[in-house]
This record gives sequence, C-alpha cells and structure tokens, in this order.
Amino acid sequence: MSDRHDFSVPTLGERKVPSPLGLSNKVDDDLADYTCDDDRIVFDATGASPGLFFERAGPRERIFFRSEDVTAGIVTCGGLCPGMNNVVRALVRRLWFGYGARRILGFRYGFLGMTHASREKPLPLDPDVIHGIHRQGGTMLGSSRGPQEASDMVDYLDEKGVNLVFAIGGDGTMRGAQALFEEVSRRGLEIGIVGVPKTIDNDIQFIEKTFGFDTAVAVATGAIDAARVEAIGASHGIGLVRLMGRHSGFIAASAAIASREVNLVLVPELSFDLHGERGILQYLRWRLETRGHAVVVVAEGAGQNHLQASSAKDLSGNVKLGDIGIFLRDTFTRELQELDVTVKYIDPSYMVRAAPANPSDAIFCGQLAEGAVHAAMAGKTGLVMGYWLGHFTHVPLKAVSRGRKVISLDGPFWRNALEATGQPMVLSAAPDATTVRG
Amino acid sequence: MSDRHDFSVPTLGERKVPSPLGLSNKVDDDLADYTCDDDRIVFDATGASPGLFFERAGPRERIFFRSEDVTAGIVTCGGLCPGMNNVVRALVRRLWFGYGARRILGFRYGFLGMTHASREKPLPLDPDVIHGIHRQGGTMLGSSRGPQEASDMVDYLDEKGVNLVFAIGGDGTMRGAQALFEEVSRRGLEIGIVGVPKTIDNDIQFIEKTFGFDTAVAVATGAIDAARVEAIGASHGIGLVRLMGRHSGFIAASAAIASREVNLVLVPELSFDLHGERGILQYLRWRLETRGHAVVVVAEGAGQNHLQASSAKDLSGNVKLGDIGIFLRDTFTRELQELDVTVKYIDPSYMVRAAPANPSDAIFCGQLAEGAVHAAMAGKTGLVMGYWLGHFTHVPLKAVSRGRKVISLDGPFWRNALEATGQPMVLSAAPDATTVRG
Amino acid sequence: MSDRHDFSVPTLGERKVPSPLGLSNKVDDDLADYTCDDDRIVFDATGASPGLFFERAGPRERIFFRSEDVTAGIVTCGGLCPGMNNVVRALVRRLWFGYGARRILGFRYGFLGMTHASREKPLPLDPDVIHGIHRQGGTMLGSSRGPQEASDMVDYLDEKGVNLVFAIGGDGTMRGAQALFEEVSRRGLEIGIVGVPKTIDNDIQFIEKTFGFDTAVAVATGAIDAARVEAIGASHGIGLVRLMGRHSGFIAASAAIASREVNLVLVPELSFDLHGERGILQYLRWRLETRGHAVVVVAEGAGQNHLQASSAKDLSGNVKLGDIGIFLRDTFTRELQELDVTVKYIDPSYMVRAAPANPSDAIFCGQLAEGAVHAAMAGKTGLVMGYWLGHFTHVPLKAVSRGRKVISLDGPFWRNALEATGQPMVLSAAPDATTVRG
Amino acid sequence: MSDRHDFSVPTLGERKVPSPLGLSNKVDDDLADYTCDDDRIVFDATGASPGLFFERAGPRERIFFRSEDVTAGIVTCGGLCPGMNNVVRALVRRLWFGYGARRILGFRYGFLGMTHASREKPLPLDPDVIHGIHRQGGTMLGSSRGPQEASDMVDYLDEKGVNLVFAIGGDGTMRGAQALFEEVSRRGLEIGIVGVPKTIDNDIQFIEKTFGFDTAVAVATGAIDAARVEAIGASHGIGLVRLMGRHSGFIAASAAIASREVNLVLVPELSFDLHGERGILQYLRWRLETRGHAVVVVAEGAGQNHLQASSAKDLSGNVKLGDIGIFLRDTFTRELQELDVTVKYIDPSYMVRAAPANPSDAIFCGQLAEGAVHAAMAGKTGLVMGYWLGHFTHVPLKAVSRGRKVISLDGPFWRNALEATGQPMVLSAAPDATTVRG
Repeated sequence: MSDRHDFSVPTLGERKVPSPLGLSNKVDDDLADYTCDDDRIVFDATGASPGLFFERAGPRERIFFRSEDVTAGIVTCGGLCPGMNNVVRALVRRLWFGYGARRILGFRYGFLGMTHASREKPLPLDPDVIHGIHRQGGTMLGSSRGPQEASDMVDYLDEKGVNLVFAIGGDGTMRGAQALFEEVSRRGLEIGIVGVPKTIDNDIQFIEKTFGFDTAVAVATGAIDAARVEAIGASHGIGLVRLMGRHSGFIAASAAIASREVNLVLVPELSFDLHGERGILQYLRWRLETRGHAVVVVAEGAGQNHLQASSAKDLSGNVKLGDIGIFLRDTFTRELQELDVTVKYIDPSYMVRAAPANPSDAIFCGQLAEGAVHAAMAGKTGLVMGYWLGHFTHVPLKAVSRGRKVISLDGPFWRNALEATGQPMVLSAAPDATTVRG
Repeated sequence: MSDRHDFSVPTLGERKVPSPLGLSNKVDDDLADYTCDDDRIVFDATGASPGLFFERAGPRERIFFRSEDVTAGIVTCGGLCPGMNNVVRALVRRLWFGYGARRILGFRYGFLGMTHASREKPLPLDPDVIHGIHRQGGTMLGSSRGPQEASDMVDYLDEKGVNLVFAIGGDGTMRGAQALFEEVSRRGLEIGIVGVPKTIDNDIQFIEKTFGFDTAVAVATGAIDAARVEAIGASHGIGLVRLMGRHSGFIAASAAIASREVNLVLVPELSFDLHGERGILQYLRWRLETRGHAVVVVAEGAGQNHLQASSAKDLSGNVKLGDIGIFLRDTFTRELQELDVTVKYIDPSYMVRAAPANPSDAIFCGQLAEGAVHAAMAGKTGLVMGYWLGHFTHVPLKAVSRGRKVISLDGPFWRNALEATGQPMVLSAAPDATTVRG
Repeated sequence: MSDRHDFSVPTLGERKVPSPLGLSNKVDDDLADYTCDDDRIVFDATGASPGLFFERAGPRERIFFRSEDVTAGIVTCGGLCPGMNNVVRALVRRLWFGYGARRILGFRYGFLGMTHASREKPLPLDPDVIHGIHRQGGTMLGSSRGPQEASDMVDYLDEKGVNLVFAIGGDGTMRGAQALFEEVSRRGLEIGIVGVPKTIDNDIQFIEKTFGFDTAVAVATGAIDAARVEAIGASHGIGLVRLMGRHSGFIAASAAIASREVNLVLVPELSFDLHGERGILQYLRWRLETRGHAVVVVAEGAGQNHLQASSAKDLSGNVKLGDIGIFLRDTFTRELQELDVTVKYIDPSYMVRAAPANPSDAIFCGQLAEGAVHAAMAGKTGLVMGYWLGHFTHVPLKAVSRGRKVISLDGPFWRNALEATGQPMVLSAAPDATTVRG
Repeated sequence: MSDRHDFSVPTLGERKVPSPLGLSNKVDDDLADYTCDDDRIVFDATGASPGLFFERAGPRERIFFRSEDVTAGIVTCGGLCPGMNNVVRALVRRLWFGYGARRILGFRYGFLGMTHASREKPLPLDPDVIHGIHRQGGTMLGSSRGPQEASDMVDYLDEKGVNLVFAIGGDGTMRGAQALFEEVSRRGLEIGIVGVPKTIDNDIQFIEKTFGFDTAVAVATGAIDAARVEAIGASHGIGLVRLMGRHSGFIAASAAIASREVNLVLVPELSFDLHGERGILQYLRWRLETRGHAVVVVAEGAGQNHLQASSAKDLSGNVKLGDIGIFLRDTFTRELQELDVTVKYIDPSYMVRAAPANPSDAIFCGQLAEGAVHAAMAGKTGLVMGYWLGHFTHVPLKAVSRGRKVISLDGPFWRNALEATGQPMVLSAAPDATTVRG
C-alpha cells in the first residue's frame, strides 16, 4: 500500500446544528466524549506509511441535520449474512432515540425497493416494528441482488423526501451506493449516502472485519464437526465441506483453524494440483493410509482452473461449471477408489448465511450501525463504515471498490492454517507459475 | 394388529447363576428391584387385544452367564445416527461395572468387522477406551452397510470365543442379526444375539421410539429455521428442506410440527399432485400471493411417483432418480416463475446424522443399552430391545422385520402436522386411488 | 392404584353444533379423523386394573360452542417453565384458525389478572399479537403465584362474557381451576374450565410427562457439565449442582442420567445420612481419593431432615431453612477439609426455567394446547389435559390434586439413576426407618 | 502512555540453530514466512507516540534450542477460563509436530505442581494424551491459586531438566513467572519463561484481548436473556445478573451491549448513587413504571463503596462484604417494594468460566500458543504473549504487572454501552468527587 490513497470522505456541507446527544468534549471527566473530526487511525500498524490515516468514526459535536428535517431510508442488499437485522435495528434506534428522527423508511427487497418498479411500498420503521428482530437471522426488509438505475433511485428518494440513505451490502452494493452518491452530487441534492459493509466472505479492502463473519465461522465449524464424525464413521472416510468464499478463503481457513480437525483446506488464493507427488490426492492417500480418515474444507472459489479443465475435457455437461465441492467429491470418489473411500459431502451455506448473529457480531453490528448514524447525521457522505486496527473508521466509497482483500499466503494467518491442518505448504509442482488469484 | 403375533423371545437355556447386581426382590423396600420374567406390557393401549403382551426388559435375578465366562462383542452398522457412541459406552460400562465382564470386543466398521475379510482387528473395549465418547456424534467403532455371510461371522465369533453379540443397527442389521441367531441355533452354540434398534427414521415396527430420533428432529428444526429466514429474505421466497425418511415421514412431520413455521410438509405416506386445483403448486401460489413466502419440508421418500413419471418422460438423465428435493426445487423454480420465486434448498442430512445425542436421547440410549445387557446376561437371545407405552421391552428379532411403522394419515399425529402447517388435508384429485405407501 | 378412581370428566351440556374442522369419521380413508367420545386409554400398561381407563383427547365431531359465541380467556400462573408461550400461541391459533373464534383474551400476571384487583386489563390476542412468541422463553402474559377468590374471578369472567377459560399452571393452579369450576357450576353458568398442566418438576399425578420438562433436563445437563469441568479443574474438586424438585426428583435424576458424569444424585424420595459408613461423606471421600474429583446433583427438596436438624442445633439464622444446596456446599467444605476439597456450587434454576422450549417440548406443547381447545369446544369442563402411555387424555381436575407423582426407588427409573451414577443403593444406616417422602 | 515504556524482551542468548520449520524468508513467494526480529507493531494506533513499538511474535529463522535438547513444562494457574485446554493442546502440538520436541511435562494443579510439595507428579504430554481436550472446558492439567516459592520451583525444574516453561495464567501468575524468570537469571540457567495471559476479565495492560473473553461474553449473554425472560414474566419484574469483573467491567459491559436488552449496567469504573434524583433506584422506578420490567447487569467489583457503607452501618454480618449482586437484590427488593417488584437474581459465573472455547476463541488460543512456542524456541524469555492492533506481540513480563486495563468512561466502548442500555450517562450527584477506580 502506498500514499496514493486518499481516505478523506466527502461532506454535504457546513455543520449547522449542535448534536442533541449531550456528550462531553472534555477528556477524563468520566463522561462519554464526542469524536473530533481530526481523530485518525494509522493505516499501517507496523509504522510504515506514517502519513497515511483513516478518519475515525464517532459522534460529532456539531452536525448537519436537524432531527425534524431527517427522513432516513434503509436498504439491505445481496445474499443473507448474520447480523443484518441487528444493523437495521441499531440504525433505527440510534436515529430515533439518539437523534430524535421520526421518519425512517425500510425499502423492501434491496435496491429494487428504492425504485418505481417495486411491488412493495417502503415500510415505516420505528422501535416497535423492529422489536426483537435482532434475535432472528436474515433481514426483515428482504433483500435482492443486482443494481438499479441510479437516476431512478434518486428520483424515488427525492419524491419520498429521503435525505439519508443507509445501504447495507457487499461490493456490488457499495458500487451502487457510489453511483447514487455521484448522481446525488451531480444534481446538487442534500442526500447523504452511507454504506454499511456486508460481506460474509470478509473480503472488503481497508476493512479488517465485516459483520456476520464471526458467526459464519462458528456455524461453519459445526458443519466441519459433522464432516469429521462422518469421516471417522467410515473406513477410509473423507468428510468434505464446501464453504463460502468466491475470491477469498477467510471463512474456510478460519473455520479450519477453529475446528483444528481439518487436514486440508483449499482456498481461492492457493494453487494446487490434483495429481502428482505434491498433488492433493497423494496427500490424501497418505493421510487415509496412516490415519484412516480425512477432513477437507474447500472454499467455493478454490481450484477453478481444475473445473474449467475438466469441463472442457469431458464435455458431458454433468459437472456444473464452477462447483468445486461436487467436483472434489466426484474426484475423490473416483481417484481414491482403490482405497475404498467413502466421501460425505456437506454444503452448509444457507444454514451459515441464515444464522442469527452471535454475541460478538451483535456487539459489532451495533457499533457499526451507530457509527453510520453518527457519520450520516454529521453530514458525511459517500462513505462506508470501516474497522481498522480495532477502531471504527470512515472509508470513502470509491476506495473500497478498487480491489478485494485476500489471504496472503506469506502471512501469519495462512501460516496458522498450515499449523492447524498440518497440510504441506506446497501442493503443486510449480506454485509460482500457476497461482490463480481472485 | 391381531393375536397372531407371538412376542415371546428365545433363551439360551436354563439360568445357572444368581445375578451379581445385588438388587432387591421385594416391592416397596426402597431398593431397586429385579424385573420378573413374567412382567409384561400390553400391546394395545386402548384395551383392545387384551391377551397380547410384550415381555418387559430389566435385570433378572438369576442369569445365564458367569462374569468370567463372558466375551462380548459389539458392532455398529448402517448410517450414522445420534447416540451410537452412547449405546456403545453404556453397553461396555454395564457389562464391566454391573456384571464384571472383562473381555469386550468392538468390531470395526459394521458386520464386515465380524468377518475374516476385515482389514481391522476387533478393538478391546474397557471404560478407559470409551471415556468421553458419548459427547461425540457418530460411532467410534466405525460403521458400514450391507450384510455379511452368517456362517463366516459365526466362524469368526467362535474363533474369538465371543458368546454375546450386541448388534446396533436398522432393519437390515436386524435381519442380519436374525440370520446370525439362526446359524448359531443351527450349530447349537451358546452365543446370545441381542439387537439394539437404530433407525433415525423411527420406522421399526413394535418399537415406539428409537434412539437418535429426538436429536435428529431437533437438528432438522434448525435447518427449517434457516429455510424460513431465507424464504422471508427474498420476495416470493421458498425455503425448501429435504429430510430423511425413505418410507416413513416421522422426522419430516415432527420437525415441521416442532418448528411451527412450515407451510407444507410432504411425507412418503401422503399422495399429492403437483398440478391441478388441489395440487401443491396451486397451494404454494396462494401462499406466496397472500403471505409472500413459504417453507416446505419434504421427506426423501415422498412423491416418488412424480420422479418416476418425470424421468420416464424426459429421458434426459439429468434428474437423478428419486431425489425429490432437487426435483421439487427445480419444479418450483420452473412452474412458479410467473411469481418470480426464489427457491433456497437445504439438505442437512449429514449434519443431522452426525450430531451428538441430546440429553433426552442420552437418557434413552443408556436405558436401551442397559436393558440389552440385562437381557443378554439373562440368556435371552434372538431379540431386539423395544420401547412400548413408555416401557422397555423385548421383541423377537423375527417380529420386527415383518413390516415398517408408517404415519397413519387418519391418526392424531398427522392431524397435528396439518394443524401446525395449515396445509390442506387433501393434496390430490383422487387421494384414495393414487396413495403410494412405503 | 385401584378402581376407586373415576376418570370421567364433566360436560357443559348437550352438543349443539357440528365441528367446523371438516375431519373424517371413517377409518383408513387417509383423512384425519375425529376422536370418538368413547375412545379410551388403559390406566395400567401391565394389564392390571383392566376396567380402568382415561378418556382420550381429540377433536369431537359435534361440539358445544358456536364459533361466534366463543369468548376465550387464557391465563398463565406460577413459576416460569419452558413452553408457556408455545402453549399460549397454539391455543390462540387453534381457536382462531381451527374453530373461528375471534374474541380471545390474555389475562395478565396469573389469576390476579382475572380479578377486579388487576392493574392490567386483559390483552386481546390474535395471530399477529402472538407472532414469534414460541421462540422466547417465559410467558408473554406474565405470571404470578397465589390463589384468588373464585367468586371474584367468576364475576369478572361473567362481566367480560368469557365462556372458555384455559388455565396453564401447576397443582395450585389446578386447585384454583377446580374452585372456579365449582363456583361456575354452583351458579349454573356455561363457562368451560380447562387446565393445561405446567410443572417443571413433572410431578402431577396421572400425567406421564408435562411440558418444559425435557427442556429443563437439557439445560440442567449443561449446568452439570460446568460442574464437572470445575471439579476436574481443582485438586479434590467437587462440583455441586442444585436443581428444581421440591417433592419429586425427576429433573435431578434425569439430568444425572443424561449427563452420565454425576457421581451422586440426591432426591427428595431418598433418605441419606451425612456421616457413618453408609453416609454420603464417606462415599465422597472414597470417590475423591480414588478418582480425584466428584460431581454431585441435589434436588431442592432433598435432605430436608438434615436442614431442620442443623438449624435447630446452631440457632444462628445463617443457614436459610431448607436450602440444601448451600447446606451441602458448607458441609462438604467443612467435613472434607482434611482432603483439601474445593467445592464449586451452581444453581442454574432461573436459567433452566427461562429457557425457550426445545423442539421436543415445542411439539408436545402444541399437541397439549390443541387437545385443550378440542376439549373446551366440545363442552368438556373441569378437566386438565393429560398424557398417558403416549396418548393425550382428559383427566378430571379433582383427580390430579389428590397427590403427587414421585420417583419409586424400587422402579427402573431410579435403577437407571443408580447405574448412571454408580452411587450405592443405600446411603443411610437404616433406610426403612428414616425415609422422608415429600 | 509515554516513551518511558521499554517493550524489548530478554533473550537466553545467541541463536544457535536454524529453525526446523522450513518456512520461507522471501516475501510474495506464496510460502509462509518467518518473522523478522525487528518486525514491530506501533503502540498507538492514532499515530501519537511514534517511536514506541511492540516486538512482533512469530517463528524466527534461527532459534536457540535444538529439538533434542528441549524439555518443556506447561502449567495452568488461577480460575478456569474458556480455552485453557486449547492453549495446552496447541502448545503440545506445535512443540511436537513443529519443533520435534518429545519431552513435554504438564504440571498438575498450578504452580503447586512445580514444587516438591506437589502430591501429583507431572504428566507426560503427547498428541495422544491431549486428543480432543479442546472440545472440553477447563484445564486437563488442573489449576490452583496462589504463588509458590520461586527458588523451590527453579530447583524442581532443574531436577526435571525442564528448560522451557509455559505459564498460563492471570496477573498473579505473570508476577510468579517474573519471579521465576528473575530467579533463573540470578542462577544463570538457560530456562526460558514464557507467559500466556489468561484473564477472563480481559484486564491485562498492553494486551487488547485475552483468550476466553469472547466465549465468556457469549455465555453471559445467555444468562442475561434468562434474566430478561424472568423480568418480563412478572409484574414489575427485575432481572439481575452478576458477572465477573473485579476491577474492570469489560465482560459486563460487553454482554450488555451484545444482548441489547439490558437497561442498566454497573461496572467498577463507574460511580453511582443508590438514592437521589440521579441514583439508580430512581431510574429503575421510572423504567418499571413506564415499561413494566427492567434488566440489570452488575460486575462483581462494581459499587464496592456501597457495600462498605452498608456493612458498616448495620453491623449485622449478614451482608457478605463485597457481594454486590446479593446487595443489589436485597436493595431493590426493599427499596422498590412500593412497586411490588419481583427481583430474580442470576449468578452464572461458574457456567461462564467452565464453557468450552467458542470457535473465535479456539482460533485465538491456537494463535497465542503457537506464538508462545515460536518465542520460546527462539530463546525469548521473561515475556508474555500479547495481542495489539490485531497482531500478536511479545510483551515483557515486567511491563504487564504495572497496572490494569480498565474501561475509559470517556471512550467509545462505554459510549456504546450507554447507547445499548439507554441508561443515563451520570448516575451520581457528584460524579467527579466520588469516582472509585479499580
């Protein structure tokens, strides 16, 4: 990373009003403090890039919006993720009880609900409507995938009088939010656009941790335990679990480390051969012969080069392009048949996504949402809430879409995965040449 | 049921020795009692069939085997089921601590481990070896499917000096145990054969409840909750869960009743149409249009007539014969596309099977295993442990293989399922004509 | 038990109307059936008492109340118990969707809410109000202890036009319901009184199992596991858990059997000495010296004779009369100090009571509530829902208050507890003389 | 914080041997890297204190010990904490599989097991002995409190030939480890002393997060949910939960934030009045009158000034000094009796401590233990493993005992607690004057 990054976030304009929160602006008076606008968090914990910082999130002493002027809108987009309801609830409660906002709309089923094409009208939200939703997985607002026309959405927001939009979603949603921000700016409207990053894969750049990830790992670990039990239960049993992770293997690797019973974890960042001395089949043969069973975890985006190859080769159409779980199940069954393997395949994805937030994520969701409300009320816009070195930050929307966070195979996290699984560091004949990155 | 049933169980011969358990044979002395051989449990709780009884399980005052003569063998067969380890552990502890047996063998990987073809030698079992296994799902002995030659198994048992066999398994295993019993009888050997019924589907005749069922329903209910969350999270979302149940829908119906969030449950006992006024598609259309989402649970053995029909019709080979879950997922997606349905399909089967026994099953497994040991030590043979009207019983092996327990669509259990789901009582144009039973 | 019992239940009068449920009255037509009024369940599963039966619960073909005439009231009384919300929800839904009742009142905070002294008005209940409550422990209606004047309650019901009362509670509540029934009968009012038995201790006579018990045992088992971990974590550690059970030790004994890690379980039905060769201290000394740690479970009603003795002796007032948990903690610490014991004491009672119903209890609660609605709509009154030999029954209110269900120390359940704990069958010098029963 | 801190850690001497781990020393070659000795993590994430750093943990390319020379000893001290077994297991596996060490001793029951007074000999540890312990709470080695003579311990270590000590424990243990380190240094022995910080209260300075905390918060949140259910279940019900936290309220505040159902959380860092306009009784009165129930969480170290006052006043001896939970229970019951309050008091401490590590803690424990082994093998000594800004660090033992980490009432974490509970920021008449800090 270099100093080419510009992490300052846009604002709607001059702060007009004092915050109604009644916090303190003195340190060490045992009263909760406002956050100064020039509070910042270093970009690099090692002390490199000393001039690069993120803006620190938190309530500002002077804010942009008067309570009575606020009409907020909340939208949840993309696949389900533990904690969406917690974020929605905390947004509503902070707006309502903290800032006195009384007009809050929940758009239904993603960005579609912010357009004229929506079948469903926005749902008015208040503390009663959201009562207890944090104990349920999913999102009470519903979700959907795919972008919508920014101009139609801005028309719609304008008609409804919405001047604060909270968009909860992944990188596609953040690109949509950036488009919204640009359209709003082009028209000169005073509508704040604040993103809350949601990616169960935890792969958004400049954001250390996203909500739902901790819960996802915990639920995935349970699925791995089932795979282990199945593997032990059969002679030469292999338990195979497919987990999320299109471009980054954080869930798969974290769950493998947590369970400490996985013998092989495959992630999109890692190049691996099937055959040959260093290939995974040879490793599994050794494992089955010496220990009698094996547990394998694979991220959905891993080994895509094998899928393309095999589907090109046999032209059968049976292998669904890109389904590495099914592919490995069939490959293990076929290639290890001399060992009489029994492969049990588990895909717990929906059960992982739909889980309610665990306590750790519940805390995190609340903090994120509260930070988003503080930023929005202060007139910050075009930003997404970040988390960096243990602190909540503001990240410009345009920064997060530049790339994805991936596992560094050189770094300590992947070393932990190797330590926990005992798998060989190198699983291909020529790792440098064939590495495929997401 | 009629009085043609003969529920008396065979014995190895005259009781030679007093039980070492030191129980009481007086009632109301506040000391635990032996069970009399003529204690019995009525067959029919309604008072019909007054002359028909099961033998009651429990420790006998005089027993057949001397502790020092016992060499016991334990085998676990078939698919995994919560509680297998609990049964193994309780068998070992009751033999060891209760009756003083010191030679106990665990055959590896099902009946195969009781043959000369086994790669693995039997594992000597004692209280240390089995320490803590009840907190793990699956079976520490491993399992496998399929019968083995009775004569080879009896040769093997004879060589090892085994005179007590505990076979934990489903109806196939009970047929294998019956074959063992017959071969042992034919040769005039003093080897007791005692079955512990294991069927996660809870479909063994004359046995009210089998171990693992309660846990299975609980875990399945969690999967249904994920399906509900996914259904709510999408506009016109359908959450579809496939559960076990080849011939009987007890798990599917019980989980649907427990969750109270299922709108349609399909079991093998129920005939249903896809199309037409009374077909399930029409019902789902109504549900989606009025409530916005639907949760559907299907037992794996349900609707097989539709699968045969469709596979015969399109000859594509893509539809894997018998996979009703995939079939319904594709059917809903295709036939309800005018409603823009989103179908999320969950198959939690391995996670259900591999779960550790919950406390209720832990109690039940212990009681079953203890009853099995008491029966075996008393010289009872050719029997399987039963549970009837809340009491543990002995059931002749040859009785349980005569048929399967299925849900009566006329009875109160299915009525509860209808009450809990709100689904129509009739889902086909001519229910009487097309009913398919397992 | 003898034939002096009369298990027939009162009725409000002649059945006036056909049931709106639309069930079948033919067997084997694959349509759910009405239950005949003369369906019955034998009292004695062993075949003794052949002339003694319970009436079987279920929907009747002809019923007493017209939908439009029904005003139902629901009240929850006594201590919390898992599943209360499930029962309330199922009552409302069966009344509403099954029988078309539209006036349903929830009385607040127990019988108090059915009197003129109540601060809170009854809460109108419908399917929206009760949405999702089954996923929460406790009771949304609130509860309280203690009886209220029957005449005041009947006045109040009469004023509100309530003609069906569902009282969910324990033996005190059932006595209150019986008083209500008698007052209603005295006045000649057409008000049905139906009880749903709630006792976390599972100690109501003629009722095999009550709701919440299964969940309570499961949660209690978790507390025992913590006690085991604490016991192992210290040199000569004792983990001591106090569980519910004033008069009957079913929860304590069941949880001990389920956990299979308890070395001593003390229940109200069992007499035990502290000191002497057969006393529990001597047994614990042996256990600590040979195994290094011990896990003890005690029901709150156990060993009351020791408490009276000690409080009489030292007159300090420090020992709170009747708290056997604190007493044993202090006794173990003092009397086993030569072994440097460390005693860790856990009382999980509120966490047990407040748990949401597990899936098994969720099923049971639904069935109980549905049976209660069917009985009430049919004009049955003065009854409590029962469960016997696996079937739902009607039990006259006046029968259940005659005594309490206790553990028979002679029977198989207690024998299972002895098998699971390994504790001596006799723990006092002269068991016959000193047995104290609740 | 200022630059007076010296965070460099001692070493045993010159690195003699290459690491057997076979990692890479090139960046970006997709092979896991060694950590350089001059890798460092900034002390201050805001960019202040630019010259202050921690040493970064990780495997070094050259190390101090040859595998065949290593005799490692592991000791667990103090109260139980989730994850102790995970740490023990990961230490053993990293030593065994990573560095080839074959002599590993587990000292029994804390520092006592490292002395000649120990009743128990050290337990030889290998991968089989520790199999599966990570799924159990507590510590398989046992624990105890209190220091032992450093000279006796060093004699004992010397006799056993131990040259690597891993001490898992809290601040007392770290002081003991520092004493050990000093005695070892004084004698000029080549014995490495490495601490793994264990404090369920998460209150060790310079260490952002300690293992077990995440699990503790999760279990505590469950207890709060029970308190909420009890509070709702009674008219004017108060659910009161006491949690750990002698000097710092991190568990109490975190659990309150996670549950989002707590109305008042009291921590040691916060001064509060009972009576008066701003006192907690007045706040609870308002809450009960407007909402009908309240949930209160108190850390065990909170409000100690009230306990001293009241015990001084009434001289009865009944109030056990320092038990704020009992005190508040009695105070609420007495002072709010005009509202007919019902107080339900839950102390889940042992159930929190004894829980097995959740997946998040399982990951963390493994990483900590692996870092500790890398440090020890590299000849680092007199250090405790730290975690700072998301990275694992080495912290000198002598630094961590200088003080305790407490909640800043001015900071964002406590602001989150106020946002989540809605409690007033000020709960005493003169907050500045009476603040009591741990």
